[in-house]
Amino acid sequence: MNERGLLIVLSGPSGVGKGTVRKEIFEQPDTKFQYSISMTTRKPREGEVDGIDYFFKSREEFERLIAEGKLLEWAEFVGNYYGTPIEYVEKTLQEGKDVFLEIEVQGALQVRKAFPEGLFIFLMPPSLGELKNRIVTRGTESEDIINDRMRVAKEEIEMMDAYDYVVENDRIENACNRIKAIVTAEHCRRDRVAIRYKKMLEVE
Amino acid sequence: MNERGLLIVLSGPSGVGKGTVRKEIFEQPDTKFQYSISMTTRKPREGEVDGIDYFFKSREEFERLIAEGKLLEWAEFVGNYYGTPIEYVEKTLQEGKDVFLEIEVQGALQVRKAFPEGLFIFLMPPSLGELKNRIVTRGTESEDIINDRMRVAKEEIEMMDAYDYVVENDRIENACNRIKAIVTAEHCRRDRVAIRYKKMLEVE
Repeated sequence: MNERGLLIVLSGPSGVGKGTVRKEIFEQPDTKFQYSISMTTRKPREGEVDGIDYFFKSREEFERLIAEGKLLEWAEFVGNYYGTPIEYVEKTLQEGKDVFLEIEVQGALQVRKAFPEGLFIFLMPPSLGELKNRIVTRGTESEDIINDRMRVAKEEIEMMDAYDYVVENDRIENACNRIKAIVTAEHCRRDRVAIRYKKMLEVE
Repeated sequence: MNERGLLIVLSGPSGVGKGTVRKEIFEQPDTKFQYSISMTTRKPREGEVDGIDYFFKSREEFERLIAEGKLLEWAEFVGNYYGTPIEYVEKTLQEGKDVFLEIEVQGALQVRKAFPEGLFIFLMPPSLGELKNRIVTRGTESEDIINDRMRVAKEEIEMMDAYDYVVENDRIENACNRIKAIVTAEHCRRDRVAIRYKKMLEVE
């Protein structure tokens, strides 16, 4: 029987660069974990592709999936739904593969309840000023939405205590290396692996 | 004020290759932690240099340092003393630098009592057969000592539960990468860094 995979949850305030970091991780050829694509009702940004970046759905479809219990977590965020289909996550963990979720802070807290043993990583901006720059530079939002996002971001940073790790996104490359190091380290945690090694003593 | 450095303790059964892994880590140019040289009364093996691999001491000198409380940990192991001078460790941690110890299992358990917040890594052979091969290949020990070491090694593996991480030494390069990943991950642990990031919210 395979050991069950790790559930890795990357979250953090809106605008911190979760999507960019996740994309970079999955472009690296040595990345072994599986990406679980989120579902959303927000409009695709330029370059985003349905079924690759997100599953883009209508509100009606999304609400039907909620009602049917098909989502591991979901949240409404600045007027749009975001969520994670449960089936892929469960199946992949059971195959012994690590699953990577990149989700909003509200959703991560729901996942923590369902998977307390998961690996929760909070992506942190180097400063609040830098976070605002990134939201403004993205250029897809009005000033009201920017201010709203900054207020929400501060509230989200206060929720850091529900996470296991905090990774600073000073440079995308550094953030990716830290995240991959965390996954490697967690696979070496004594409480996860001691049973396997103690069997060695019985066998030989 | 600097944040205090991490104390990293690499240990594991005799013959598993702790010294080889440690040497490889410190030959890599991106290694940022400081190596704390152990003290021993055992004879230098071929190629080992006093003040680099170990401080080689007589039994009389070693016993005087024990009596004076100058050792963080010490142990008698297969007829020889091994120990860690305390001063360098404390000074370096206070400067905010990580300190790396490579010590025997008995000694690591003593350090755990003095530094419960330290990072304890157990280096594990891929199998007991492979461990025996390595002890035999080293070729410096008689058959009685080899059997004695194998018995001690099994007892030491039973002590794994006092450690935070278990790293398999299947290949030196893999073991080094895992150890460095563990240190990187520990520097991202939320309970270590949350205070620093929450100050950001107060300042801005």
